[in-house]
Amino acid sequence: MNSDLANRPLDRLADILSADMAAVDALIRDRMASQHAPRIPEVTAHLVSAGGKRLRPMLTLAAARLCGYDGPDAVKLAATVEFIHTATLLHDDVVDESGQRRGRPTANLLWDNKSSVLVGDYLFSRSFQLMVETGSLRVLDILANASATIAEGEVLQLTAAQDLRTDEATYLQIVRGKTAALFSAATEVGGIIASAPKPHVQALFDYGDALGIAFQIADDLLDYQGDSNSTGKNIGDDFRERKLTLPVIKAVAQATDEEHAFWQRTIEKGEQSADDLDHALSLMAKYKTLEATRDDANIWVTKAKLSLTGLPEHPIRTLLHEISDFVVARLA
Amino acid sequence: MNSDLANRPLDRLADILSADMAAVDALIRDRMASQHAPRIPEVTAHLVSAGGKRLRPMLTLAAARLCGYDGPDAVKLAATVEFIHTATLLHDDVVDESGQRRGRPTANLLWDNKSSVLVGDYLFSRSFQLMVETGSLRVLDILANASATIAEGEVLQLTAAQDLRTDEATYLQIVRGKTAALFSAATEVGGIIASAPKPHVQALFDYGDALGIAFQIADDLLDYQGDSNSTGKNIGDDFRERKLTLPVIKAVAQATDEEHAFWQRTIEKGEQSADDLDHALSLMAKYKTLEATRDDANIWVTKAKLSLTGLPEHPIRTLLHEISDFVVARLA
Repeated sequence: MNSDLANRPLDRLADILSADMAAVDALIRDRMASQHAPRIPEVTAHLVSAGGKRLRPMLTLAAARLCGYDGPDAVKLAATVEFIHTATLLHDDVVDESGQRRGRPTANLLWDNKSSVLVGDYLFSRSFQLMVETGSLRVLDILANASATIAEGEVLQLTAAQDLRTDEATYLQIVRGKTAALFSAATEVGGIIASAPKPHVQALFDYGDALGIAFQIADDLLDYQGDSNSTGKNIGDDFRERKLTLPVIKAVAQATDEEHAFWQRTIEKGEQSADDLDHALSLMAKYKTLEATRDDANIWVTKAKLSLTGLPEHPIRTLLHEISDFVVARLA
Repeated sequence: MNSDLANRPLDRLADILSADMAAVDALIRDRMASQHAPRIPEVTAHLVSAGGKRLRPMLTLAAARLCGYDGPDAVKLAATVEFIHTATLLHDDVVDESGQRRGRPTANLLWDNKSSVLVGDYLFSRSFQLMVETGSLRVLDILANASATIAEGEVLQLTAAQDLRTDEATYLQIVRGKTAALFSAATEVGGIIASAPKPHVQALFDYGDALGIAFQIADDLLDYQGDSNSTGKNIGDDFRERKLTLPVIKAVAQATDEEHAFWQRTIEKGEQSADDLDHALSLMAKYKTLEATRDDANIWVTKAKLSLTGLPEHPIRTLLHEISDFVVARLA
């Protein structure tokens, strides 16, 4: 991955939005604080300093700006979206028992499951307070629905992820829940707060939805072909955690009886030995499922770009177009 | 405990509200369902069938009715409150690693921590959708603030519960968070939805706050003096889980050096042997801390009753008065 090249559109967007993003960061720090429970900023500061690209709050700010909004509520909603995202990460860490996130130990290894669950709840309730402050019932409705879709997707993943009958349609539903729902809510509320006309709000929703799906498919692909130094993840984490994602779903769909027995043993029963990841990778290579998965990601990138044609011309629209390429450029 | 006698006011309130409570139950069942994730109703049906007294949703219905409300939103808010309560129980079960709740195995023993966390999140997001449907920003504000207070109280408990420096003021703050915040929000939103005048809304808040505190103090007392057959809890669960509650806080405050060393070993360090609970109980007996804790509960019952004087006369007001006695009658 050439990160100089790939990051360029995101960096340019961050540049354009830098004043607002600074306000978002300040608001996050302010609302994260707790007079009574110092454990809260301890846990969250860890996550916030881990940083990431702050893609989701930037999407909200970008959508609002693109639709001509210049008021204070976009910053509140951007912080809301980041709080929801961080709460989800904390609860995911409990759930996945994963050893690292963004190349650093997860919060539940540094502290404990208790803190991850309860501080996640705290962040979610803080996000809820922030969105109420906008006074927009439409925004509250969108974010309430997104929250339900996220939670439903996560629960669905619990049962479907270790079930070899899980097909691409179910995978898509999980991905919409765990990732795309927050992307599409992030862009949609940006349009709502700007009082954008309905077709523009729809275009923003469609863009977030397609971008989120492309992003998650790319993430699942990177799990099998990424470089753990640059992604901060270990190759094959999803395999070891018995999490059925698109590259494996495509291999299972074409499996011989013997191969099916292999997937049953390793994914459904969780009986794995040292060589199994290599064998899994060889089966994905046999059916070229990594390539097919990348093709799918590209289809969603194309959908994201098409959605943008429903929006007025604007420098930010051009950047959003380039950002959708970035999602898959990570895979280059 | 003579449950026939003690339950009477709650049963009479349940009678008066039976049509609305049936609507609440139907709404809960309806909104709990998930087309995509059958694990959700599996987990929640377990909790809902466990039942409990549905005290919190009844408080919302009672407050609204007492203030003359006769519309559909009280049922929605009552279901909202029960969803928040159930979500909290699910997350508590993960946190406490407790073996049973209401005399039945907890959800996280029947399923797993993952399901408890994520289904709790789902219920919380469903409650959020329900409250948005009322279209009242005031209600949303109250419930957002209550959610933050609950989460903050739970996090505070994480660090304070095993720290012998925790005093009665901190204990009260935890209790307000983990219990009273939802009681007071439940009664307050009932008044809001009825467009009750400000002093009535304040009286309802004060009643819920005092009732919730009395309820939790009584609960913490029952942990040391209850009958595990009728309470569904084992005597001394809080001691074994190293959870500092009022009866122990009062004993620690008066402890000799030797006694302090005992509390340090058993609560702070968690080094417990078979005889330690008996010794802890003897220290509480020495300082009469169970009696003092019951006195405190009674003070809050009196505050709850006093708050009711700020409300118009109404048969439901009389029942709320009797219900505050019931909270401590459990201790008789």
